[in-house]
Amino acid sequence: MESMENWLQKAGVLIEALPYIQRFHGKTIVVKYGGSAMVDHDLKKSVIRDVALLKLVGFRPIIVHGGGKEITKWTKRLGIETNFVNGLRVTDKQTMEVAEMVLNKVNKGLASMMEKLGVHAAGICGKDGSVLRVDKKLSGGKDIGYVGEVKEVNVGLLNTLLDNDFVPVICPIGSDDNYHSFNINADDAACAIATAVGAAKLAFLTDIEGVYRDPLDKSSLISELTVKEAEELLASGNVGGGMLPKIQNCVDAIKAGVSRVHILDGRIAHCLLLEFFTNRGVGTAIIGDEEERYYEANE
Amino acid sequence: MESMENWLQKAGVLIEALPYIQRFHGKTIVVKYGGSAMVDHDLKKSVIRDVALLKLVGFRPIIVHGGGKEITKWTKRLGIETNFVNGLRVTDKQTMEVAEMVLNKVNKGLASMMEKLGVHAAGICGKDGSVLRVDKKLSGGKDIGYVGEVKEVNVGLLNTLLDNDFVPVICPIGSDDNYHSFNINADDAACAIATAVGAAKLAFLTDIEGVYRDPLDKSSLISELTVKEAEELLASGNVGGGMLPKIQNCVDAIKAGVSRVHILDGRIAHCLLLEFFTNRGVGTAIIGDEEERYYEANE
Amino acid sequence: MESMENWLQKAGVLIEALPYIQRFHGKTIVVKYGGSAMVDHDLKKSVIRDVALLKLVGFRPIIVHGGGKEITKWTKRLGIETNFVNGLRVTDKQTMEVAEMVLNKVNKGLASMMEKLGVHAAGICGKDGSVLRVDKKLSGGKDIGYVGEVKEVNVGLLNTLLDNDFVPVICPIGSDDNYHSFNINADDAACAIATAVGAAKLAFLTDIEGVYRDPLDKSSLISELTVKEAEELLASGNVGGGMLPKIQNCVDAIKAGVSRVHILDGRIAHCLLLEFFTNRGVGTAIIGDEEERYYEANE
Amino acid sequence: MESMENWLQKAGVLIEALPYIQRFHGKTIVVKYGGSAMVDHDLKKSVIRDVALLKLVGFRPIIVHGGGKEITKWTKRLGIETNFVNGLRVTDKQTMEVAEMVLNKVNKGLASMMEKLGVHAAGICGKDGSVLRVDKKLSGGKDIGYVGEVKEVNVGLLNTLLDNDFVPVICPIGSDDNYHSFNINADDAACAIATAVGAAKLAFLTDIEGVYRDPLDKSSLISELTVKEAEELLASGNVGGGMLPKIQNCVDAIKAGVSRVHILDGRIAHCLLLEFFTNRGVGTAIIGDEEERYYEANE
Amino acid sequence: MESMENWLQKAGVLIEALPYIQRFHGKTIVVKYGGSAMVDHDLKKSVIRDVALLKLVGFRPIIVHGGGKEITKWTKRLGIETNFVNGLRVTDKQTMEVAEMVLNKVNKGLASMMEKLGVHAAGICGKDGSVLRVDKKLSGGKDIGYVGEVKEVNVGLLNTLLDNDFVPVICPIGSDDNYHSFNINADDAACAIATAVGAAKLAFLTDIEGVYRDPLDKSSLISELTVKEAEELLASGNVGGGMLPKIQNCVDAIKAGVSRVHILDGRIAHCLLLEFFTNRGVGTAIIGDEEERYYEANE
Amino acid sequence: MESMENWLQKAGVLIEALPYIQRFHGKTIVVKYGGSAMVDHDLKKSVIRDVALLKLVGFRPIIVHGGGKEITKWTKRLGIETNFVNGLRVTDKQTMEVAEMVLNKVNKGLASMMEKLGVHAAGICGKDGSVLRVDKKLSGGKDIGYVGEVKEVNVGLLNTLLDNDFVPVICPIGSDDNYHSFNINADDAACAIATAVGAAKLAFLTDIEGVYRDPLDKSSLISELTVKEAEELLASGNVGGGMLPKIQNCVDAIKAGVSRVHILDGRIAHCLLLEFFTNRGVGTAIIGDEEERYYEANE
Repeated sequence: MESMENWLQKAGVLIEALPYIQRFHGKTIVVKYGGSAMVDHDLKKSVIRDVALLKLVGFRPIIVHGGGKEITKWTKRLGIETNFVNGLRVTDKQTMEVAEMVLNKVNKGLASMMEKLGVHAAGICGKDGSVLRVDKKLSGGKDIGYVGEVKEVNVGLLNTLLDNDFVPVICPIGSDDNYHSFNINADDAACAIATAVGAAKLAFLTDIEGVYRDPLDKSSLISELTVKEAEELLASGNVGGGMLPKIQNCVDAIKAGVSRVHILDGRIAHCLLLEFFTNRGVGTAIIGDEEERYYEANE
Repeated sequence: MESMENWLQKAGVLIEALPYIQRFHGKTIVVKYGGSAMVDHDLKKSVIRDVALLKLVGFRPIIVHGGGKEITKWTKRLGIETNFVNGLRVTDKQTMEVAEMVLNKVNKGLASMMEKLGVHAAGICGKDGSVLRVDKKLSGGKDIGYVGEVKEVNVGLLNTLLDNDFVPVICPIGSDDNYHSFNINADDAACAIATAVGAAKLAFLTDIEGVYRDPLDKSSLISELTVKEAEELLASGNVGGGMLPKIQNCVDAIKAGVSRVHILDGRIAHCLLLEFFTNRGVGTAIIGDEEERYYEANE
Repeated sequence: MESMENWLQKAGVLIEALPYIQRFHGKTIVVKYGGSAMVDHDLKKSVIRDVALLKLVGFRPIIVHGGGKEITKWTKRLGIETNFVNGLRVTDKQTMEVAEMVLNKVNKGLASMMEKLGVHAAGICGKDGSVLRVDKKLSGGKDIGYVGEVKEVNVGLLNTLLDNDFVPVICPIGSDDNYHSFNINADDAACAIATAVGAAKLAFLTDIEGVYRDPLDKSSLISELTVKEAEELLASGNVGGGMLPKIQNCVDAIKAGVSRVHILDGRIAHCLLLEFFTNRGVGTAIIGDEEERYYEANE
Repeated sequence: MESMENWLQKAGVLIEALPYIQRFHGKTIVVKYGGSAMVDHDLKKSVIRDVALLKLVGFRPIIVHGGGKEITKWTKRLGIETNFVNGLRVTDKQTMEVAEMVLNKVNKGLASMMEKLGVHAAGICGKDGSVLRVDKKLSGGKDIGYVGEVKEVNVGLLNTLLDNDFVPVICPIGSDDNYHSFNINADDAACAIATAVGAAKLAFLTDIEGVYRDPLDKSSLISELTVKEAEELLASGNVGGGMLPKIQNCVDAIKAGVSRVHILDGRIAHCLLLEFFTNRGVGTAIIGDEEERYYEANE
Repeated sequence: MESMENWLQKAGVLIEALPYIQRFHGKTIVVKYGGSAMVDHDLKKSVIRDVALLKLVGFRPIIVHGGGKEITKWTKRLGIETNFVNGLRVTDKQTMEVAEMVLNKVNKGLASMMEKLGVHAAGICGKDGSVLRVDKKLSGGKDIGYVGEVKEVNVGLLNTLLDNDFVPVICPIGSDDNYHSFNINADDAACAIATAVGAAKLAFLTDIEGVYRDPLDKSSLISELTVKEAEELLASGNVGGGMLPKIQNCVDAIKAGVSRVHILDGRIAHCLLLEFFTNRGVGTAIIGDEEERYYEANE
Repeated sequence: MESMENWLQKAGVLIEALPYIQRFHGKTIVVKYGGSAMVDHDLKKSVIRDVALLKLVGFRPIIVHGGGKEITKWTKRLGIETNFVNGLRVTDKQTMEVAEMVLNKVNKGLASMMEKLGVHAAGICGKDGSVLRVDKKLSGGKDIGYVGEVKEVNVGLLNTLLDNDFVPVICPIGSDDNYHSFNINADDAACAIATAVGAAKLAFLTDIEGVYRDPLDKSSLISELTVKEAEELLASGNVGGGMLPKIQNCVDAIKAGVSRVHILDGRIAHCLLLEFFTNRGVGTAIIGDEEERYYEANE
C-alpha cells in the first residue's frame, strides 16, 4: 500500500489539473502528430493515451498526422524513384498512390489504438466529406505533382464526429476540383483545420525542445511568445530553417482565431498532458498579443 | 427539343418510381459492391451514381466493398508470395498489411467519387468506431492467418454518419480482441452490417445474372425465392459452388431480420436503379416466407 | 420483360433527375394550381401525383388552388345573380358564402387525393392560423364586395405542417381585421405565400404554353427571362392582357426573394415533373438578373 | 371603481379555478359542439371564448362540431329531396356534396372566431391527414348512402396541431378505402377522437339539462354517474330515446380510456367554464367505476 | 346549488381574465414580496396562492423576498447589538450570519408553501449559481459592513428553474469577489433580477396604497405614470421619503427594459390577481413613455 | 522548473486516473459529507475541490451534508434546552427552527465554495421541489419531535440541476404531509437520494478508517465487502455501535440498486480523489455479490 505522502502527491497532481480541465471543457483541440512520436512505439502509445484522456475529461480533440518516413519506406520497397525540385520531393501519380495507401493504413492504426483504450475514433482523410479541398501547389513556380494547398475546409464531417463523441483522426490528403488526390503538408493541414473548427488550442508535436531566442544557447528556450514577438523573432533572422515555416504557421493560426498554439517536444512522453494539465509548459506557446500570459500568472 | 411522346415516357418512368421511393423512404439499404462493377470504370461510375440517387430520394444507403483483384495486383508487385490452405488464400502479416493499404485506398476513392456527385460520404473500415469486431477464422481447422469472422457489429459510427447525411463506405477489415487487423469476406461483412443496422434491403452486385432453377438452362432464372424455396433449392444440389454460400448468406440475413435480399447482375449499368425503382427486378430476390411477392403483385 | 435498351433509357431518366433532386432537396416549392388542370380529371390526377413525387424526393411542396368555374356552377344553380364592375365580378355576401363553401370542398378533395397516394396533406384556407390577412380591395375605386388583397401572411401553420411532413393545400380565402371572409385572387395568394415562406420555386399551372416574344409567332416561346428582360417585355407593349398581371406577379415574387418562377402549360400531363426533373423546361421561367441560366448551362 | 367586496369575490372565483387548472394542465379535452349552442350567436361566442380560455390556461382542447340544421337549409334551397330509411336521412351523392360544402364552411367560421380571440386554430375534416377513416354504415341492413362509421383515427395531424399550439376544429367527414367522402355522426366522431388521442375529458354540449333519474321529475338530475350506474340506468328502461345512444357513447368512451365524459347543457352561457373551473358541475358526468367522485369530495 | 345569476358572474370574471392571461403567457413576472404581506398569515397564503395561479395559467413568476422584521427578532434574541450609520443599520459579521440563517429559513418556508399547493418551487439565494454578485456598498462614504449592491446577475440557474417549471424563490443575499456573503436591499435585488431576466412585469408588494399626486389627498392616487411623469413627480418634491427610492427603482427598471412596474398595496388580499387579471389596477403602475395605457384603453 | 522524473510521475497519476474517469463518465455520485471534514477548514476545502474535479471530468456529483455540531452551538447560544429519549435528541419546534436556520446557512456556504472554484452549485433542502417527503419517525415508540424518515424522493429538481450542470448541495430537511419541516438523519437522506437517482456510487465521509474485521486489530481493515459478507459481519456481532447502522445503510443502498458504496476516512485530505481516481481505495467498499472486485482486479 502506498504511503500517505505519496497519496497526497497524487492528489496534488489531480488538483493542479482542475483549472486546466475547466478552462478547456468542451473546447476543440487540434494535435498535429508527427516526428519521433510516430516512430517510437512507446511514445506513440503515450500520445494516444494522452489524447484519450483529453477526450475523457471533456475536451474535443482532433488528431492530424503525417507519415513521411513510412511513405519513403514503401516507395523504396516498390522501387519508385524519388525526384526533387528546389529540394522538394516531387509527388508523381505513382508516389501519390503509394502515399495514399500508406497514410490511410497509418491513420486506421491510430484510430484503432484509440478504440483499444475505449475511446471511439474514426480515421478519415480530407477526401471524406470533402473535408480538405485543395489547389495544386507549385514550388518556385515549378510543378511538383500531386501536392496541394488547402483552399477550403468543410467542417461538416468533423463536427458530426466530434458532436457524437468520436475523435477524428485525419490524414492530410485532399481533393482538387477534379476530385484527384493531393498530398498536403501535415502542419498546414492542422493549421487549416484548427482555424476552420475554431480550435482553442493547436499543438505541434515536434522533434525539438521549442523555440530558442538564440539557437546556439540551450538555455534560451522561450516559454511564451506573443504574435508580435514571434514576428520580431522571424524578422531578426535568428530562426533556423525548419523552424521558420512552423512559427509562421503558428502566427497565421492565431491571426485566424486559434487562441494558443504550442510547439511541443514530442520526444518527451506525455508531453501533451504536461502541457495541458500542469502549470509548467513543455516547449513554446505562441499566443495573441492581448492574450493573458498564464505561465507567469500561475507562478 | 424533345417530342411530346418522349416527354410522356420520361414522366412515366418517374411516376413508376413513386411507390418504390415511398416504400423505402428513410430505410437503410446495404449494397455489397464487388466483382466486375469494381473493375470497369463506367460500371463503377454507374454504381456510385445509383447510390447517390438512392441517398437523394430519401434512402439511407451503406456501401460495403471488396477489392481482391487490386490486392493481388499489389502483392505481386511487392513480390509477396501467396499460399493456399484448402484452396483459401493465407493472409499472413505482410499480406494483411498490403490488403489494408489497398482496401483503404479503394475505399477512399469510392467515397471521393460520391463526394464529386455532391453527396457526402465517409470511407471507414471496421476498425473505426470498432464497427466490425472479429474472431480469428479457421479453414477446415487450419490457421489461414489474419482472416476474421464478424462476432460483433457496433452501429454507433454507422448511425452517426447516416443520421447526419453521410453515406458510409465500408471496407471489410475488422479488429480482434487485441485490436489486430483482420480481413473479412465482404459478403459476410455486408450481411452482418445489414443485420445489425436493421436494413430493409441488402443487395449483392455480382457477376452472374441471378439464381437459376437449372444452372444449364438460361431461361430458368428465378425472380423471387422465399427462404423456404431457397432452402429447398440448396438442398436439391442444383446450385453451383460459388452460388451456394451467397444464397446461404441471403437466407441468414433474412432470418436475422433483413426484409429483402437481392442478387443482382452488376454487369448491367444502373442495375440498382432498375431493381429499386422499376416494376421488374434484375436478378433474384430472396424474401421472407410471409413477405408479399411484389413482382407478381405489380404485374 | 423489357429489353435492355428500354432499361437503359429508364435509368437515364432517373439519372437525369439526380441534380435537380439535389438542388431542391429540403426546399419549399409553391404550385399555383388552376385552369384546365383543375377541370380535366386525368390532368388533376397527374398534378397531384407529381406533387406527391416532389414531396417524396425531399421537396416541401405547397399547393395554392383556385376554383372559379366551380363557383360559377353553384351560384348559377342557386340562382344568385352575378354583377360586374369594370369587368370584375362583384363578390357580395351571398356569393362569398357560396365561394367559401365551394372552394373548401374543392380544397378537401385535393387533400384527399394526395392522401390516397399515401402522402399526408391538410386542406386549409387563409383563415386557419390567420395565414392570409387581407385588406378590402377596390377596383378602379369601386367597391366590388368581399374581395381582398393580402396584407400579411402568417407562416406559423404552414411551417408546422411542412415540418411535420404534411403538404399544405390552400384555398385563397382570407380574413380582414373584423375576421370577415374575403376572396383572394389565387395567383396573388400564391405569390404572397411563396414570398413569405421563402420558396425556392413558384410554379403557375396555366392554360398557355408560356410567354412569347411575339404573341402571334408560336415559335417565339421564351424559355428563360431575367427580371430585367421581363420588365422590358412588359414595357414593350407586346404582352397580351391576361399575361400582363401574371408576368408582373412573377417579377414581384423574384424581387421579394423567390429564386425562380415558372409559367407552365398545365395542359401537358406531368408538366411539373418535366419542368423540375429534366433538362428541358416546359413553358417560361422568370429568374433573377444574377441567376445562372441553367437551361443553357445544361445543354 | 369597484368596491372591495366585489374585488374579493372576483379573486375568489379565480382562486376556486386553481385546482382545476392544475388538474388538467397539458391534458387533451374534446368538446363536441352542437345543438342550440351552434345556432344562437351569443352562445356560439360564449363557447368559442370558453375554449380559447381552456387553451390559454394550458389545456389542449379539440372541437368536434356538427351542422345538421345548416345542411338542411341548403339542401332545401337547392331543391334536393330528402329521403328516409328507418327514420334515418339517406345521404345520396348530391346531399353528401352539399353536406361537405356546408360543414366545411361552418368549420372554417369556428376556426376564424377562435383566431379573432388571438388563439390559433385550424379547421380540418377527417379527410385531412386521413384523420377519420370509415366503413359504410348500414341502417337496419339498408343502404343509407354516404354515411360512415369510424374504423380508424390517425392522430398524426391532430398531434401536430396540438403540439404546435393550434386548436383543431374538426368536422365529421371521413374517407373510406376508395377515399370517397362520408358523413359521420358528430357524437360518434367526438368519441372516436377522444379515445384515440387519450383525452382526459370529453364534453357534449347538448340541448338538455343532463340525465334524470326520472325523466318526468326535473329535480332528479344526476350530477355524477359511474359506468356501472349508467349501465344500470340504461337497463332500467328509464332513459328517453335521444338520450340512450348518448349515454351509451359516454360509457364506451370511458371504457376506451377517457377519464370523464360530461353531458352539458349547451343552452347555458359559459357552461364549459362553469363545468371545468368551478366546484359545481352543470349537467351530468359519467366517470369510471374507480374514479374519485369529486363533486362530493369538494363539498 | 348556486343561482344562475351567480354562475354568470363567475364566468364573467374568468372571461375578463382571458386577455390578460393571453398577454402575459410565457412571460416572466418578478414579484417583490415584503411588508405586511409577509407578517400576516392570511395575506401570506393569499400571495403564495396568487403566484401559484400565475404559474398555472402560463406565466413564469419569480419571487424575491425580504425579511427585515424576522432578522431583528433573532438578533435581539441573540443579544446582538444593532448600530446605525446615517440612519442605516450596520451589518457586521455576526449580524450577517444571523441574517443569512433567518432569510434562508423564511425562503424555504415560502417555497414549501408553494409546494403544498402543488406548484414546484426552489428556494435559492444569490450565492447559488452565483446569481447575485455584489460590490460592497457604502453609505455616505461610510462602511456599513456586509451590505452589497448588485454588480452582476447570472441568470443561468434562474432560467434552468423557470424552464423546468419551478418557481424560483429568492432571498437577497449575494457574494462578492471573495465569495463572502452580503445582504442586499430586496427592492434593489428584485429590480436587478427583473432587468436581467427581461421580465415583462415587476410588482412591488408594499404597505401603501400607491403613489399620490398629493400625499395629503387620499383621492389623488395615480393609476398609471409614464417614466416622464414619474421623473417630473420626483423632481416636484411632492414625494415622501420612503417612496422616493421605490419610484426611482421603478423608473430604472423600465429604462433597463422591464415593460411595466407596479407598486401594489400588499395589504389587500389577492392584490396580485386583481392587478393581473382584472381591468382595474390596485395601486400605481409605472410604464414606458411609449407604452399604451391600458386601464384607459380597457374602460 | 521541475525535473523530468517529476514530470513523468505527474503524467503517471493522470494516466492512472483514465480508466476511472471513463468508468464513471456521466454517472451520478452521491457524497455524504459530514464529521471532521465539515469542521476542519482545510479538509472542507479539500472535499469541495475534489467534488468540483469530479464534476469537471464528467461525473454528476450530489452532496448531502449534515451539521449536528453547528446546530448544537446555536441551540446552546440561544439557551434552548436539549432533551433526550432513549439517548436520542428530541427535536421540538424551537430546535427544529434553529436546525433549519443553521443547516441552510451551512448549505449555502458549501454551494458558495463550489461557485468560488468556478463550478456551479445550488443549495437546496428537501422541501424545495418536494425532494424529500417524510413520515414522522418514532424512537422506540416514543415521540422525539420533528424527526422524519424519508418516504418518498422526488427527483425532478435534482435531475433539473444535474442536467443543467449544477451540483446539488442538499441539507437533510424534508416535509411531511402537512408540509411541516422535519430533520432527517443525513446518512439516511444520502441513501434515499442515491437510490432514487440511481447513483453509481455513494460515498460516506466518516471519521473512521473503514470497517475492521476485528475492531481491536488496526491491521484488519477490509478493502472490499460483498453484501453477503457484510451481512455475515453484522450477524457476527463484531461490529461496533456507530458502525452498525452505517453498514446496514450501505447494504440497503446496494440492494436498492446503487452499484458501490464507500465508507471513506474523511480525515484524509482528498480521500475522494484517491478513492475515485487511483487503484488503491481508502476505507471500505461494499459491493453487490455479483460485482467484480476491482481492487484485486487492478493489482
